[in-house]
Amino acid sequence: MRQSSFFIRTKKEEIKGEPSLNAQLLLRGGFVNKEMAGVYSYLPMGLKVLKKIENIIREEMRTKLGAQEVLMPALHPLENYKATGRSEMDVLFHTDLNGGGKLVLGQSHEEIVVPLLKKFISSYRDLPLGVFQIQTKFRNELRAKSGILRGREFLMKDLYSFHEDEECLAEYYERSKEAYHSIFNRLGIGDRTYLTFASGGTFSDYSHEFQTITESGEDDVYLCKECNVGINEEIIEENPCCPSCEKNKNELRKERAIEVGNIFPLNTRFSDPFSLTYKSKNGEERPVFMGCYGIGVSRAMGAVVEILSDEKGIVWPKEISPFSVHIISLEKNEEAEKIYQKLIDAGMEVLLDDRDSSPGEKFAESDLMGIPVRIVVSEKTLRSDSVEFKKRTEKEAELIKIEEIVSYVEQNI
Amino acid sequence: MRQSSFFIRTKKEEIKGEPSLNAQLLLRGGFVNKEMAGVYSYLPMGLKVLKKIENIIREEMRTKLGAQEVLMPALHPLENYKATGRSEMDVLFHTDLNGGGKLVLGQSHEEIVVPLLKKFISSYRDLPLGVFQIQTKFRNELRAKSGILRGREFLMKDLYSFHEDEECLAEYYERSKEAYHSIFNRLGIGDRTYLTFASGGTFSDYSHEFQTITESGEDDVYLCKECNVGINEEIIEENPCCPSCEKNKNELRKERAIEVGNIFPLNTRFSDPFSLTYKSKNGEERPVFMGCYGIGVSRAMGAVVEILSDEKGIVWPKEISPFSVHIISLEKNEEAEKIYQKLIDAGMEVLLDDRDSSPGEKFAESDLMGIPVRIVVSEKTLRSDSVEFKKRTEKEAELIKIEEIVSYVEQNI
Repeated sequence: MRQSSFFIRTKKEEIKGEPSLNAQLLLRGGFVNKEMAGVYSYLPMGLKVLKKIENIIREEMRTKLGAQEVLMPALHPLENYKATGRSEMDVLFHTDLNGGGKLVLGQSHEEIVVPLLKKFISSYRDLPLGVFQIQTKFRNELRAKSGILRGREFLMKDLYSFHEDEECLAEYYERSKEAYHSIFNRLGIGDRTYLTFASGGTFSDYSHEFQTITESGEDDVYLCKECNVGINEEIIEENPCCPSCEKNKNELRKERAIEVGNIFPLNTRFSDPFSLTYKSKNGEERPVFMGCYGIGVSRAMGAVVEILSDEKGIVWPKEISPFSVHIISLEKNEEAEKIYQKLIDAGMEVLLDDRDSSPGEKFAESDLMGIPVRIVVSEKTLRSDSVEFKKRTEKEAELIKIEEIVSYVEQNI
Repeated sequence: MRQSSFFIRTKKEEIKGEPSLNAQLLLRGGFVNKEMAGVYSYLPMGLKVLKKIENIIREEMRTKLGAQEVLMPALHPLENYKATGRSEMDVLFHTDLNGGGKLVLGQSHEEIVVPLLKKFISSYRDLPLGVFQIQTKFRNELRAKSGILRGREFLMKDLYSFHEDEECLAEYYERSKEAYHSIFNRLGIGDRTYLTFASGGTFSDYSHEFQTITESGEDDVYLCKECNVGINEEIIEENPCCPSCEKNKNELRKERAIEVGNIFPLNTRFSDPFSLTYKSKNGEERPVFMGCYGIGVSRAMGAVVEILSDEKGIVWPKEISPFSVHIISLEKNEEAEKIYQKLIDAGMEVLLDDRDSSPGEKFAESDLMGIPVRIVVSEKTLRSDSVEFKKRTEKEAELIKIEEIVSYVEQNI
């Protein structure tokens, strides 16, 4: 992509009235546009990042959990929420159907997925089963001040699993933890993201959150070094020690964190109101056991920005960066175009800054955008048939011969 | 994908109370689930088709029109609609923000994209520009009886173009027609889809629809054989002849049709209320000229089903079929598994029917699902080291040697 034909412009200055770091950097870098508090448009580069995160999650859901992808709607009949007792939730957006009928906008899909799967699950042979979607959710938040970390409209992956009994659910639930760790590792925030005990579960009395440690987080979590897990505030208030090794609260480290995912053993909480049952091997009609497993896709993008950024801007991890290489052409020179084409031919995603700005502006903008590799093509280095190669994570640039640049980038990205 | 692990089951019987052909076939084939009138979930195979249609449209928007993809939200401030005089539209869903604020759900995005682009367009150097999205739209339809042809919630591609003047807009508008024809050709409905004169345009006094001829259509169009275009009812009532060759209404063929796309020269209709202007070469502040270009993604899927189906079921065109090959294993035999693996290794998308059903059931189900190529692996043909190969569009099967099957499928798909 040539930057000259991109409609995005970055902003040097801090944006006023925007306390959130992720919103600052994403707005200034031209990744998103704020439509109202908690509601964002994704601009071309932001959408590229979002799609890459989606694809990592999709891949892990399929390969690690054998889950099948569906797409459920945002418009839900209110009556389904009356059946589960959730119609009074504060965060629901309400709307009316012309011609009569009360609807809400989905903030989660238990009320839709259970009646849907009731049409397909009848026997133990149909279980276990995992279905997921990557879909837009709506939460009528009173305040939405954390950029894309807490949206009124946001993208989420939600997986629902269906089992014969608590034991089968527990086995799948354990596997989901591995899939989640793998996702957060690939997003580049694995070392900061802790499986965290939370309330509301059934077997072992817990559900779990995935909490990413960052100062801008909205939650407090207590980290147990011994077990490499977190404990959320609600749990620690009930029982001031690590649920796993029983280490005392005083020995745990209190940190601020963002909840980037959660997994929840629902058991029969939602199958009961819709009578989702199956016929067991010996012919009994039994309730289906369920689990649900969420990841905020746009929130994960915000968490990456909060953590992987420095005073100059974002530092995208390579798997989700909008481009792999940012070529900066200092004087409009043909060599930059040639290198651009060579890298594209080698299968890389390349952004070429071919505009008439000053070197200083281009460098600052490149740091703000956070593409992992920067190549500067200038008349000066071309005299020695070289270009400057610099990683976003490093301070110093290296001179690389043009003839070696493709293989050098391939090996050092 | 092995059918035994798919959670979908097809239905032999007609579904009662569902007059629409596309809904009948998509529901019976296990592609969608109806949540309420005009609101559908996409099941794994349906979602695969939808994503393929999306990708065709995306590719054509990028390559033919150089458009950049964004993602705008569904929640819109009502005040933007007051600015354009569209706040009283019947089809808007309304909702309230906790803490105050009136919102509507987007049925189109002029009210969002214009204020957004106002931040990025300031000079003639920023024009022309095309941005598009593939995003969920909401229309509060009083009646929704045409399956996925007329949804209350549906997927749409909407492109907005921005220009210096009417002439530049007209040039882009002409190119958009080519892109649209190319899309409908790739969807397999090009020969039935006509550029159709509609009212509401400015230059040449027309906007245009893309109307696909089918009995189940909701519109009447008049086809001019001479010009290979359609004229919609509104236009023909005003002036009973072809706008292009002036052939009289009597010589035109009246047909029922579905509107699968539309393109509209907006001129300054939406730039004016938001004061979207640019500085021209000689320093004047001028209004930006706009066009908008829609395709119903889910509607296009419905149109394909209406047209490309027979008494047995759907006949997917190969570019959007959920799978390329359907292998039916008649007795659970290892050879079917081997062929399945071989075709997957050759890069094909294959569905393997490895379940314990009767041959008759399997064949009927395969015809209903509509995958372009069917391969039957049975003990009988294996005796001559062969399998049966049949295209969905043909009546007769051929015997093909197993060792030739991969290359035969590649050449005959």
